[in-house]
Amino acid sequence: MAKQITTRELNYNEWYQDLVIKAGLAENSAVRGCMVIKPYGFGIWERMQQALDKMFKDTGHQNAYFPIFIPKSFLSKEAKHVEGFAKECAVVTHYRLKNSDDGKEVVVDPDAKLEEELIIRPTSETIIWSTYRNWIQSYRDLPLLINQWANVVRWEMRTRLFLRTAEFLWQEGHTAHATKEEAITEAELMLDVYSDFAENFMALPVIKGVKTENERFAGAEITYCIEALMQDRKALQAGTSHFLAQNFAKAFDVKFTTQNGNQEYVWATSWGVSTRLMGALVMAHSDDDGLILPPKLAPNQVVIVPIYKTEEEQQKVIEYGQQIKSELEKNQVRVHLDQRDNQKPGFKFAEYELKGIPIRIAIGPRDMENNTIELARRDTKEKQNMQNIDLGIKVSALLNQIQQNLYNKALDFRNENTHRADTWEEFTDLLNTKGGFVLAHWDGTGATEQLIKEKTKATIRCIPLNNKLEEGKCILTGNKSIQRVLFAKAY
Amino acid sequence: MAKQITTRELNYNEWYQDLVIKAGLAENSAVRGCMVIKPYGFGIWERMQQALDKMFKDTGHQNAYFPIFIPKSFLSKEAKHVEGFAKECAVVTHYRLKNSDDGKEVVVDPDAKLEEELIIRPTSETIIWSTYRNWIQSYRDLPLLINQWANVVRWEMRTRLFLRTAEFLWQEGHTAHATKEEAITEAELMLDVYSDFAENFMALPVIKGVKTENERFAGAEITYCIEALMQDRKALQAGTSHFLAQNFAKAFDVKFTTQNGNQEYVWATSWGVSTRLMGALVMAHSDDDGLILPPKLAPNQVVIVPIYKTEEEQQKVIEYGQQIKSELEKNQVRVHLDQRDNQKPGFKFAEYELKGIPIRIAIGPRDMENNTIELARRDTKEKQNMQNIDLGIKVSALLNQIQQNLYNKALDFRNENTHRADTWEEFTDLLNTKGGFVLAHWDGTGATEQLIKEKTKATIRCIPLNNKLEEGKCILTGNKSIQRVLFAKAY
Repeated sequence: MAKQITTRELNYNEWYQDLVIKAGLAENSAVRGCMVIKPYGFGIWERMQQALDKMFKDTGHQNAYFPIFIPKSFLSKEAKHVEGFAKECAVVTHYRLKNSDDGKEVVVDPDAKLEEELIIRPTSETIIWSTYRNWIQSYRDLPLLINQWANVVRWEMRTRLFLRTAEFLWQEGHTAHATKEEAITEAELMLDVYSDFAENFMALPVIKGVKTENERFAGAEITYCIEALMQDRKALQAGTSHFLAQNFAKAFDVKFTTQNGNQEYVWATSWGVSTRLMGALVMAHSDDDGLILPPKLAPNQVVIVPIYKTEEEQQKVIEYGQQIKSELEKNQVRVHLDQRDNQKPGFKFAEYELKGIPIRIAIGPRDMENNTIELARRDTKEKQNMQNIDLGIKVSALLNQIQQNLYNKALDFRNENTHRADTWEEFTDLLNTKGGFVLAHWDGTGATEQLIKEKTKATIRCIPLNNKLEEGKCILTGNKSIQRVLFAKAY
Repeated sequence: MAKQITTRELNYNEWYQDLVIKAGLAENSAVRGCMVIKPYGFGIWERMQQALDKMFKDTGHQNAYFPIFIPKSFLSKEAKHVEGFAKECAVVTHYRLKNSDDGKEVVVDPDAKLEEELIIRPTSETIIWSTYRNWIQSYRDLPLLINQWANVVRWEMRTRLFLRTAEFLWQEGHTAHATKEEAITEAELMLDVYSDFAENFMALPVIKGVKTENERFAGAEITYCIEALMQDRKALQAGTSHFLAQNFAKAFDVKFTTQNGNQEYVWATSWGVSTRLMGALVMAHSDDDGLILPPKLAPNQVVIVPIYKTEEEQQKVIEYGQQIKSELEKNQVRVHLDQRDNQKPGFKFAEYELKGIPIRIAIGPRDMENNTIELARRDTKEKQNMQNIDLGIKVSALLNQIQQNLYNKALDFRNENTHRADTWEEFTDLLNTKGGFVLAHWDGTGATEQLIKEKTKATIRCIPLNNKLEEGKCILTGNKSIQRVLFAKAY
């Protein structure tokens, strides 16, 4: 199996694109900027969805579904939101096609023009808060803790599979609260959920922080985020959680009667993660031979490849493979036994390496006789022969170990690539030579932040939560600073 | 709790609409024809999804995701498909908004006009078959068994919550096969899956059949369907499965190399069910007091309502309720313990009746002393006092019984409302006075079918599978007929 994957060193972006396509995760579609998520990629996304959905429900949230269309006028109601979001989006102007005069094609029916254009949701705050107006009257209706799994469209000019596509899949939580404090607590809770998910399922260490005003979500008062470091030492924002204050409640006139009988505007949060996480997963762990999937998200955790020459051997070895499979399944391990007769073991080995299956078990006639197996780890590529005794327990333990190892490796990588800079020279030097996260002082102004971005392409990824206050001087202006913030070039 | 539900007898349509809205299943949104699926409704839909998704996977299918947009030109490629589908749909013509000159609103940017308009998928055969072209080269790539959970848009002029909305949620399976026989087998298999789901989860008896040419899916050679009878004696199509022959393969030039090295067009099926099933579920079982949910799909199968006067009683009764809850949960029963202190038991009883929770358990101080409970069934409204012994087992058994009872009741209703007509007078008389399904002879022509529809509003719901051949005369024309077909007025 000729994989023909560009190496990371040669061209990191092409390596990424090769992996996504050749491992069968996704591909570009006939529609500009939109991707097709292929079964293998979707299988991983489904595991992400299941884990997140459970975490949302365990924290009291319910799912619902709101329309994909947003009346154009809704977008203008929240001033900052329209600035940030209304521009690059898909606009529905007509609701009917008709046959062309020559009958050979269909054309837009000019008589079927909508009175008001509809926007395909780039995010759903406006349509949801216009709905909440009817759902919330009293403090008894609060909190309202709702999530939606949906597709959204943002008309990006430069797209990359999973990382930036015109249409993508995501979840968006939209909650309503009686007090500011409760809303902030909710936004922080969901940040913790995201961070737990990234670290415990994706094996991806993240830094929790707050965005600067420049980088804030359009309409938010605080944007919390989790930031991860990819292998090319660029940062990737993996999830955001917004405290929206009363901005959308005011825009859509959503008030409630307090326990004291007063009328007050409702406090809001929203939070989301998307199929972009698939890109982060690929880029964080994989190598030049293919994907490396964390066991918790791998559709198959173990693949069994039978090796044989004669038909008689084939039958026996497959039988042995089936025994092993059922033993592993008893221990809740997801196993695939590859019975294909038209591919050689070597081809299969390369294929499963490409697909990132955490553990490969190879068995031949001699293994069957000796009740042994050959086990190979995808993450370390270590191989070992072992007795087929208590295999379910051993493999379960090993899967946990692999999950932990991937996390540790990514954490070590991030630690090695997080630096402190105290002068402009150090700062630019680090960015140009080493990349990674740079902790540096900043004077707190949007103008300086913007200037730094223009000069270096690095942005402030976040002001880390629980940041240690420390007096210093801004690396660009030399003005007074009270803390270091996290800079990086980013996706 | 004043429910104010219109009775079925007074106005069946209003009864339906009242139920859907007052039980919190769904509501109309600010966007014409689009609904908001509220958390309670979505919770039921999620259970439907889970059950169906498992059945799809158990029969070898995988999920994937294809773009929401279809280039306009794709629709013209399959001649019959465009006739049936291309017309009433949402058309995206622009990809950007801009600020209006007065800066007060946003307007469509005329410079951002798409070269080719994009249609929001009304169904995905065209975009998927344009993709399959690259996925299928050899017989080894077949069968391709893929399903997608997605939103679709059909610009309906008259909409009704769940039953007919501009945007709805559904799943659409799209499979590719090497032979005609295999594709037909697949289409029939998925019809069986739908029928099993309807009968075993929704407690809804269905008739499996084949659509006439007039009623066939645009682009299909055979459309299989399941048809159910609602309480107003109108039929509802609950799912369809299509044998598409090589129509889409030819339209998108999807060929494969056979084992013998020949090039042949691929054979196709597609099959789908939608949130319309939510409407069927409501209409099949519910009564004038509210929903009646089959236990397998009810988000909560049991609700426990504690009854008390003093605070001391409250504490003890709730503790007793928690014991019962955890006993039931040990038996995989989904239970809600209603601890709200701001609503009276009578209000709660009415609310859970409205919401259709299969079993209500009421407990008071005396129950606690005697280790008893009062149990009420939503379906029969029977109440009984029972000892709190082996409650998990008893309740599980009762839930099964309720599930079966709902099915039996719906089956009895359908049997009572299925008639045979041998003359035009009998036929119209049955339709006008009794409604329901009418089995009658038809001469097999589309013209006659159309004429019957114009005269009576009844359509041929299907030609039942395994129909007994029986010579007879068409009820309208008197021409020769070889079998009875199933007529009804329908949703």
